[in-house]
Amino acid sequence: MTQLLAAREGRITPEMVEVARQEGVDPEFIRAGVAAGTIVIPKNRLRKGVRTCAIGRGLRTKVNALIGTSSDRDDPEMEARKIEVAISAGADAIMDLSTGGDIDGMRRVSLERSTVPVGSVPIYQAGIEAIEKRGGIVAMTPEDMFEAIEKQAAAGIDFMAIHCALNFEVVERLQKTGRVTDIVSRGGAFLTGWMLHNRQENPLYEDFDRVLDILRKYDVTLSLGDAIRPGCIADSLDGSQIQGLLVAGELVARARERGVQVMVEGPGHVPIHHVETTMLLQKQLCHQAPYFVLGTLAIDVAPGYDHITAAIGGALAGASGADFICYVTPAEHLGLPTEEDVRVGVMAARIAAHAADIAKGVKGAWEWDLKMARARASLDREAVASLAIDPALVRCYLEKEKEELCSACGDACALRLVAEYFQQ
Amino acid sequence: MTQLLAAREGRITPEMVEVARQEGVDPEFIRAGVAAGTIVIPKNRLRKGVRTCAIGRGLRTKVNALIGTSSDRDDPEMEARKIEVAISAGADAIMDLSTGGDIDGMRRVSLERSTVPVGSVPIYQAGIEAIEKRGGIVAMTPEDMFEAIEKQAAAGIDFMAIHCALNFEVVERLQKTGRVTDIVSRGGAFLTGWMLHNRQENPLYEDFDRVLDILRKYDVTLSLGDAIRPGCIADSLDGSQIQGLLVAGELVARARERGVQVMVEGPGHVPIHHVETTMLLQKQLCHQAPYFVLGTLAIDVAPGYDHITAAIGGALAGASGADFICYVTPAEHLGLPTEEDVRVGVMAARIAAHAADIAKGVKGAWEWDLKMARARASLDREAVASLAIDPALVRCYLEKEKEELCSACGDACALRLVAEYFQQ
Repeated sequence: MTQLLAAREGRITPEMVEVARQEGVDPEFIRAGVAAGTIVIPKNRLRKGVRTCAIGRGLRTKVNALIGTSSDRDDPEMEARKIEVAISAGADAIMDLSTGGDIDGMRRVSLERSTVPVGSVPIYQAGIEAIEKRGGIVAMTPEDMFEAIEKQAAAGIDFMAIHCALNFEVVERLQKTGRVTDIVSRGGAFLTGWMLHNRQENPLYEDFDRVLDILRKYDVTLSLGDAIRPGCIADSLDGSQIQGLLVAGELVARARERGVQVMVEGPGHVPIHHVETTMLLQKQLCHQAPYFVLGTLAIDVAPGYDHITAAIGGALAGASGADFICYVTPAEHLGLPTEEDVRVGVMAARIAAHAADIAKGVKGAWEWDLKMARARASLDREAVASLAIDPALVRCYLEKEKEELCSACGDACALRLVAEYFQQ
Repeated sequence: MTQLLAAREGRITPEMVEVARQEGVDPEFIRAGVAAGTIVIPKNRLRKGVRTCAIGRGLRTKVNALIGTSSDRDDPEMEARKIEVAISAGADAIMDLSTGGDIDGMRRVSLERSTVPVGSVPIYQAGIEAIEKRGGIVAMTPEDMFEAIEKQAAAGIDFMAIHCALNFEVVERLQKTGRVTDIVSRGGAFLTGWMLHNRQENPLYEDFDRVLDILRKYDVTLSLGDAIRPGCIADSLDGSQIQGLLVAGELVARARERGVQVMVEGPGHVPIHHVETTMLLQKQLCHQAPYFVLGTLAIDVAPGYDHITAAIGGALAGASGADFICYVTPAEHLGLPTEEDVRVGVMAARIAAHAADIAKGVKGAWEWDLKMARARASLDREAVASLAIDPALVRCYLEKEKEELCSACGDACALRLVAEYFQQ
């Protein structure tokens, strides 16, 4: 039985109790949200020893980090260290996107090392193995796709990005509408190439019930992959994006019907005046399913700083209803992230998520900043450090100073002056 | 004659022609904006060889960088290097906030080295010199304050933050309302301490006409200092902030009446759901004067990452009407910025400003990103690097790669796959 089926029967599972405790809400609030499909708890039935979290309406905005090997860099130990860096920086979940070397072995490492939910994108493995076994991605068989999903579910993966909401309606809309960057989703590109080459509908759409049956068996949460997300702000809110949302909405209803927990993946590159509309449309068309955004990136022109463009977009997206933010590192659009990139990417996404949580009125969010403000007003350096989103970084700064919390103003510190004069 | 008086007489000055050319607008658009007070051109009549810019409605959002010595770190050569770093990173203006060592000497260096407008806060020098000459900031005389303004104007400073909009109405409102962090503005703290200690109204408010006469003589643009800006999100949009805006609105009208160009400085710490209201209120209460925001910082809890919290706030503030964004560096709340902090701070503020400009529909903003998107779609690495906000950083990444624009996906590059399959 999945969390969704249990919730619908009125049962409060141990996972619901645990996430309710984390969020400081009533377990019944979680149960009702899971039953309604506005909250998901990504936890594979087979997985043990994981710090479960819940994603969705009324809850703290969560942050996801990406790791994984590629053909250019196949170093599982480095990826394992990135997992540890991401989790210690505060990531709520990680996704293993490996496409290089021993993909099964890397996944075992990810599941062993991660204390938080682990996601994957099974079509990557299916596509890469089709190149090796059959000479090309387009030679992949539908069985290859389903087998990859089943294998990864059986291994314990908690949530999967699967591009079921890509079909010929979407591809044709894309061809009719035209775009600057066509398709930037890797899984979307694998499948679109496959569909066009084989003149065959996407098996993950056509045989969606088979996908659902596998996921239900393990209670893997489905993340409907955003195959046609805009890859530049000029493509934002175009016809193909909306067509994709219409199909996603259809599949959200079918997943829930079959007892499978489901969230929806979203953009991508979104100018800030499009963010609110993008979030509202997703929530309306996808029946209030949790929204998992990749960024969103506010501008296209800042490669090397995309953790910042994504913090701008992510904060706004979260404030407008996004529930789960995928981090973007400084290496985005340029290469694979280093361990330091992973740390900075998680911090930037957490900053965006917290800014959103304050706007959303999430429990405890405002109070955190209030404590920090009081620590600053009383010039309490230890409290400032321990309340900071990155205490180690603040301590590192403070060690360089002698006695003061901050050395910027020297004798002309406004806080000290006010304490001296104003409060007489 | 100031730019404002010239504009009001219908004259288009060489500076108006120059900034119109930069912005790609008609010089008459600039003249009309300057005449109406919605645009300022911060350029001291005595200053030569500076790349003038205009700040205000309908124009590109500008970015300001702060430099300056303090009693803890008095190294004019380092500050001079920071000016060069800030300008080469794309700052539109700098402010010299020196409070340590030879303040006059540092200002000469700033004016010599800066090719962009230079701002200052004269009350810093008046206050610091009062400590040396008279034993304390509260012993500063009104003459000290006016002399500092006159001296700095005569030296060629282009715009000045002066805390004229602080009076007993504001201080009493602050005392009645209560606050978590009282006053975090250094100039505001100097003057509040002075007022309370001497039981005397702020001379810069009481004798505002004298301030205006000095500024008009040199055509220094007045930036009404935000003495009571919120220093934490809990203090945002409180009674004292609004009281300060009411006084600022009164002074904006008087400055314009006297032919002095004026903009208004704003927060500070603002949660993202307060940004739009903050910007609207300022524009309404201050007669559409250009708004110069310090951040705004979306959250309080991320010291060490405040360039990111400020990029979130600045993007939103700009999109809601702010015209001029003061950078915030990673060292904010912790210490004085290094040269690298200055570079990163300018980049983060430029990212925020550009995200805002896309939302505002500023001429050329959208087109920049469109060119970048086309460069990416055609995998043109040289075009991507030269279009990037920081071309040197992108080239540094690309040198590490062999032939590809990006190494993240290896053989599974979505753009290449799409080029291969989709466009058949």
